[in-house]
Amino acid sequence: MAHPSTKIIPPLTDELDIVIPTIRNLDFLEQWRPFFEHYHLIIVQDGDPTKKIRVPDGFDYELYNRNDVNKILGPKASCISFKDSACRCFGFLVSKKKYIFTIDDDCFVAKDPTGKEINALAQHITNLLTPSTPDFFNTLYDPYRDGADFVRGYPFSLREGVPTAISHGLWLNIPDYDAPTQLVKPRERNTSSNRYVDAVMTIPKRTLFPMCGMNLGFNRELIGPAMYFGLMGDGQPIGRYDDMWAGWCCKVICDHLGLGVKTGLPYLWHSKASNPFVNLKKEYKGIYWQEDIIPFFQAVVLPKECTTVQKCYIELSKQVKEKLGPMDNYFETLADAMVTWIEAWDEINAQPKAGSQPTTPPLKKEKSEEPKPK
Amino acid sequence: MAHPSTKIIPPLTDELDIVIPTIRNLDFLEQWRPFFEHYHLIIVQDGDPTKKIRVPDGFDYELYNRNDVNKILGPKASCISFKDSACRCFGFLVSKKKYIFTIDDDCFVAKDPTGKEINALAQHITNLLTPSTPDFFNTLYDPYRDGADFVRGYPFSLREGVPTAISHGLWLNIPDYDAPTQLVKPRERNTSSNRYVDAVMTIPKRTLFPMCGMNLGFNRELIGPAMYFGLMGDGQPIGRYDDMWAGWCCKVICDHLGLGVKTGLPYLWHSKASNPFVNLKKEYKGIYWQEDIIPFFQAVVLPKECTTVQKCYIELSKQVKEKLGPMDNYFETLADAMVTWIEAWDEINAQPKAGSQPTTPPLKKEKSEEPKPK
Repeated sequence: MAHPSTKIIPPLTDELDIVIPTIRNLDFLEQWRPFFEHYHLIIVQDGDPTKKIRVPDGFDYELYNRNDVNKILGPKASCISFKDSACRCFGFLVSKKKYIFTIDDDCFVAKDPTGKEINALAQHITNLLTPSTPDFFNTLYDPYRDGADFVRGYPFSLREGVPTAISHGLWLNIPDYDAPTQLVKPRERNTSSNRYVDAVMTIPKRTLFPMCGMNLGFNRELIGPAMYFGLMGDGQPIGRYDDMWAGWCCKVICDHLGLGVKTGLPYLWHSKASNPFVNLKKEYKGIYWQEDIIPFFQAVVLPKECTTVQKCYIELSKQVKEKLGPMDNYFETLADAMVTWIEAWDEINAQPKAGSQPTTPPLKKEKSEEPKPK
Repeated sequence: MAHPSTKIIPPLTDELDIVIPTIRNLDFLEQWRPFFEHYHLIIVQDGDPTKKIRVPDGFDYELYNRNDVNKILGPKASCISFKDSACRCFGFLVSKKKYIFTIDDDCFVAKDPTGKEINALAQHITNLLTPSTPDFFNTLYDPYRDGADFVRGYPFSLREGVPTAISHGLWLNIPDYDAPTQLVKPRERNTSSNRYVDAVMTIPKRTLFPMCGMNLGFNRELIGPAMYFGLMGDGQPIGRYDDMWAGWCCKVICDHLGLGVKTGLPYLWHSKASNPFVNLKKEYKGIYWQEDIIPFFQAVVLPKECTTVQKCYIELSKQVKEKLGPMDNYFETLADAMVTWIEAWDEINAQPKAGSQPTTPPLKKEKSEEPKPK
């Protein structure tokens, strides 16, 4: 492989949090135990805060329900969605780690074509610790992979790559389709024998992609403040576009700041398709609006003065209000929530850095006492 | 799969020519016989025109040596490289078919991970007959493939795709590395068990890629006049950048005209690495110059008036002369050759269209009588 500028030292157990949004007992963790047991989990409980979520024994976790979110953020809690997996971004906000892996609770360990169980987290870590190559396309895929390299004609000046901010993983079994496609193809399944693509690649600069939040790793220090999942679910006119919104915002900011986004491996096993009729209702406005949202993001230009993720994000919120606001009031509300999110991020993350990495953020004291973290 | 706007009717035996540049007997065709025998071959003999090239029995072909090139093009033959595989583009020029597949004579039939022989030509045809999606990235790769589709969040207005102009295939065994990488990694091999990536994808708009001419299909009607392999080899200061040059030019023109470029499958088996020391000498200036050439192509803007490939290409030649000429006189000569190429293309392809597709172009009468085409 080409020599990455970053030295690889997985598995980063002290530098990565696993964020899981859920409304149910986390029995799915049993299957992930060999891969997750040495990591800290941040569980964001959606829906009824009085419900007790059971976490299998032996996991190190903290759990936040809606009451915790309200207590910790006060009035700024309005930027965190309720009754939607978009609430996961609260976990990104309160983490104090450098890296995040987030996964849905209906996702299990997939097997590669040889039948071997895939350690999705390890692959995300590898993706995040090796550079990206957004400025020129390498036809043999990720040049930093073992046994791979840059092909003839790849400019040498670009072979250092850029830091990787996001690692987007894929899904076997149930593909991540929208409601119309689900309705048309209710039985389409991706298996490791028919649809396993053994590749990681950088999404080129100035190209948008549909980012799915089911199986996602990112460098929180590089892109965290842009990983906001918007206003979805309860009280909002839209759902199932939380990760898409985050993806569009993150991609234009990564492009502006010279950061990379990778997609491909790892796969995980997505166990069940959500109800397409319910999804259609949630998605309807998103499907309609995205025809204007995509051209908006394709045309976004961030000024040179935007040198941090926060500055980029605030600038983006202004452009959202100005350009998308006229389409629907929702985008004015969303633009305000984007600002609130950044204020919340800065407030929660402005703790004095006693050591280089505080392991116990003060605010965790306020979190729900039930169930007891181990 | 998503429904392509183009109906698929392989194998197009009457609409596709296979172009092979060579300096030796074409025994490699024996292995390709089951896949190529129903197609017409255009063989461009490089080097000594008095040498007889043997073609295995049973193939339908025409063969052009340097004397033929000179006879057919007259003074315009100066745009066709000599002693370099760049001469292959002469075959593109004299073909009268809609599609071209071009392959090097050291490339053999590869096997997929199940051990099945890969029909590279059939895969190129499939790639060319299904649309491309350069405007937005589909994380599950080619949405037109059987069992695949567009993922959630892919704008519906972009799901028709655009016509595919180019299908770029890959290589097992010897990867297409530059001389420095060959020298550093003399033993790196790609096998179907370690480096087979089962994917076809569109190279996004405004992203350049290193196009290799070893295993390449294209729609000659859509992009043919831009598929010029430049001035390389004998009498030129550079080699092994013929396909790269064509790739850069084609990509910016495809982007401008709304055409697609795909890469990935099919693989073929590249049998031997060329001498890295010889390659280093050939490549040296290309490696150096490309650091300026790539930014040039990344910044190229073609005016709206350029509505045909020819107009785009002439405009590009002007920009090459103006922007790259100051770097080295070579680019002024190359820019002139680009114009000569278009003049030759238009002259050779301006034959009156009696039927919709003349099967025997008049100029073929002038081709070498030895060896006898079957």
